[in-house]
Amino acid sequence: MKKIINNVEDIVPEMIAGLVKTSPELVKQIDGTTAVVRNDNKFKTTKQVGIVSGGGSGHEPLHAGYVGDGMLSAAVAGEVFTSPTPDQIYEAITAVDQGLGVLLIVKNYSGDVMNFDMAKEMAEADDIKIKTIVVDDDISVKNSEFTQGKRGVAGTVLVEKVVGAAARSGMSLDDLAALGQNVIDNTKTIGIALHAATVPAVGHPGFELKDDEIEYGIGIHNERGYAVEKIQPSKKLAHELIEKILNEFTDKTGDFAILVNGMGGTPLMEQYIFANDVLNELATDKVDVEFSKVGNKVTSLDMVGISLTIMKAKPEWIKYLKEPVTTIGW
Amino acid sequence: MKKIINNVEDIVPEMIAGLVKTSPELVKQIDGTTAVVRNDNKFKTTKQVGIVSGGGSGHEPLHAGYVGDGMLSAAVAGEVFTSPTPDQIYEAITAVDQGLGVLLIVKNYSGDVMNFDMAKEMAEADDIKIKTIVVDDDISVKNSEFTQGKRGVAGTVLVEKVVGAAARSGMSLDDLAALGQNVIDNTKTIGIALHAATVPAVGHPGFELKDDEIEYGIGIHNERGYAVEKIQPSKKLAHELIEKILNEFTDKTGDFAILVNGMGGTPLMEQYIFANDVLNELATDKVDVEFSKVGNKVTSLDMVGISLTIMKAKPEWIKYLKEPVTTIGW
Repeated sequence: MKKIINNVEDIVPEMIAGLVKTSPELVKQIDGTTAVVRNDNKFKTTKQVGIVSGGGSGHEPLHAGYVGDGMLSAAVAGEVFTSPTPDQIYEAITAVDQGLGVLLIVKNYSGDVMNFDMAKEMAEADDIKIKTIVVDDDISVKNSEFTQGKRGVAGTVLVEKVVGAAARSGMSLDDLAALGQNVIDNTKTIGIALHAATVPAVGHPGFELKDDEIEYGIGIHNERGYAVEKIQPSKKLAHELIEKILNEFTDKTGDFAILVNGMGGTPLMEQYIFANDVLNELATDKVDVEFSKVGNKVTSLDMVGISLTIMKAKPEWIKYLKEPVTTIGW
Repeated sequence: MKKIINNVEDIVPEMIAGLVKTSPELVKQIDGTTAVVRNDNKFKTTKQVGIVSGGGSGHEPLHAGYVGDGMLSAAVAGEVFTSPTPDQIYEAITAVDQGLGVLLIVKNYSGDVMNFDMAKEMAEADDIKIKTIVVDDDISVKNSEFTQGKRGVAGTVLVEKVVGAAARSGMSLDDLAALGQNVIDNTKTIGIALHAATVPAVGHPGFELKDDEIEYGIGIHNERGYAVEKIQPSKKLAHELIEKILNEFTDKTGDFAILVNGMGGTPLMEQYIFANDVLNELATDKVDVEFSKVGNKVTSLDMVGISLTIMKAKPEWIKYLKEPVTTIGW
C-alpha cells in the first residue's frame, strides 16, 4: 500500500484539519470533534432549519465538502468506513440549531442509522426538534454486510443539494423532511468498480478483479455487487446501468436529473466519456434530462469506478439543484 | 488496461461532447473542433479581452473545465498529451475576440508553443491583437523530453484564475500579459508520483515504480523527475517539496498562495492530509498563506500522485484568486 498519509490512526483528524485550514472562510471544526460547521457570515446572521449529515470517512468530498450556504449546515466524519459516534453528531446538531429544528440526512447503514438515532434522542432531551431522513438510493442489491435494506450511495449528494437549497429558502423542518423523503424515493443509483478501494488500516484492496473484469453493483465500502463480468465499452456500460435504473421508474415523462460520479481513482476524462454515452442513450429513450453533474462527488477512497444516479425530479427540485452554493465540493 | 472508454481514437471528441452536454449553460463546442467557448449570457453582452488556453488532453478539468465568467473565454483540447492544432486554436481566438484582443496562456511544451505561435500569426493576419504568455512553473527539472526549459504544470490553473479575474475587471491586453508574466515568475511547482499514468493508446503505465517507491519531480505527461526513493510519511514529503520551492523565492515575506493538486488517481482524503502538513510547515517557516486550493485541478490521466504549487502573490492577486467564478472545475 502506497498512500500519502502519516499514521493510519491520524488520517481523519489530519484530513479534517487540512480541510478547515484551507477553507476557513467556509467551514470551521467543532472543538474536540471531527465535525465541521458553516463559518460563513450568512450562517451567523440568517436563521434557517439546520441540515446535518455525516458518516464514515473515505467518501470525500462527502460530507464535509458540502457544508456551506445552500447545502449542509454541518457534517460529522467518522473513522474510515465507520459511523461517527452519537456524541459527535449531537455536537454538530447543537452547533447548528437556531431554534427552527434540525434535519438529519443519514445514509442507510446500520451503524449510521443507530448512531444518528441516539444523537437525535440526546438532542430531543435538549428540546431541539429533530427529523431524520434515510437515503437508500442504491438499487443494485437489496441488502449488504453493512446495512438492512438498500444502501445509501452517490444519490445522497443530490438529496443534500435539494434539501439544502430548500432550507435556505426558508422551508420548515416538517416540509424539509417530507421533501427529502420524496427526493429519496425518486433517486436511484448503480455503480461499477474496475478496482476495489484499499482501506488504509487494511493495506490491500477489498476484493480482487482480473485485468479485464469489472464488478457491477458495488457499494461505497468495497461491498460486492451483483455480477463480475468482462469490461465493456463505455456505451454498453451506460446501457446496462440505465436499463436497470429506468426499470425502477414507472413514469418516464417529466424532468430528470443525473449524476455521473467518479469513485475516487477514475479520471474526469472517463467520467465525461461515460456521461456523453448516458445522455445519448437517455435522449434516445426520450428521457428529458434537465440537470447534469459529473465528478468525484461521493467517492470510495481510491476505488476505480463510476456510478450513475438518475432522479425523477419535480421542476422545483431542478431549480434547487441549479442554485449556486458556496461549498468546497459541489 | 481497464478504462471507461469506447474507441481510443474517439476519446477526446467524446469527452468534449460529454462536457458541453452536461454544462450547456456554461460552455458550447466550436463547430468542427474540440475547442469550447463560454456560453453564458454575460459573455454575449459584456466586452473584455479574450483569454484562450489549451493543450493536450488528459489533464482535466484543465483547460475546458476552466472556461467561464472570470476565468477562460475558450479552451482548445488536443489529443491525449498532444498539442492542439493551429487551426483549432485560431478558431478559438476568433470565437472570443470582441475587438479588445486575445491573451494566449500556453504551457511550456515545444509543440504547444509552436502551434499557439502559428495560430497567433493566423489571427494577426485578421488584425486581431494577440499576446502570449508561457507558463513554466515546474522547478523540478530544467528540461524534459517535451520541452525546452522548465515545464508548465499545475501552477497554470492559478495563472488562469488571476488573469481571468483581471480580464473580467476590464484590464487591457498589454496589462494582462504583463500581469500574467509576473504571476508566472512568482509561481513554482513540484510534483511526486506513486504510480504513473496509462495513456489509452499505449495501454500500460508510462514508467514502473516498486510497491514502496515514489518519483520526485514528475511532469504531467509521465515525464520522469529527479529522484526515485522510498515513500515517506506525508509530513516528510511536504517538507521535501516545500524546501525545494522556498529556495526559489529570495523574499519570503508578504502574501503567498498554495495549490495542493491531485494528479487524477489520488483520493481527496490524502490531498487534505498533505495540505495539512504543508500549511503546518509553512506556518513554522513564517510563510503567510492567504489563499489555499486543494483538489484534482491539473491531472495526468490516472496518475497517482500530488503536486504542490506555491505563489508569492501581491494582495491584488489574492483578491483575484478568491473572486467567485462560474466554471466546472475551479
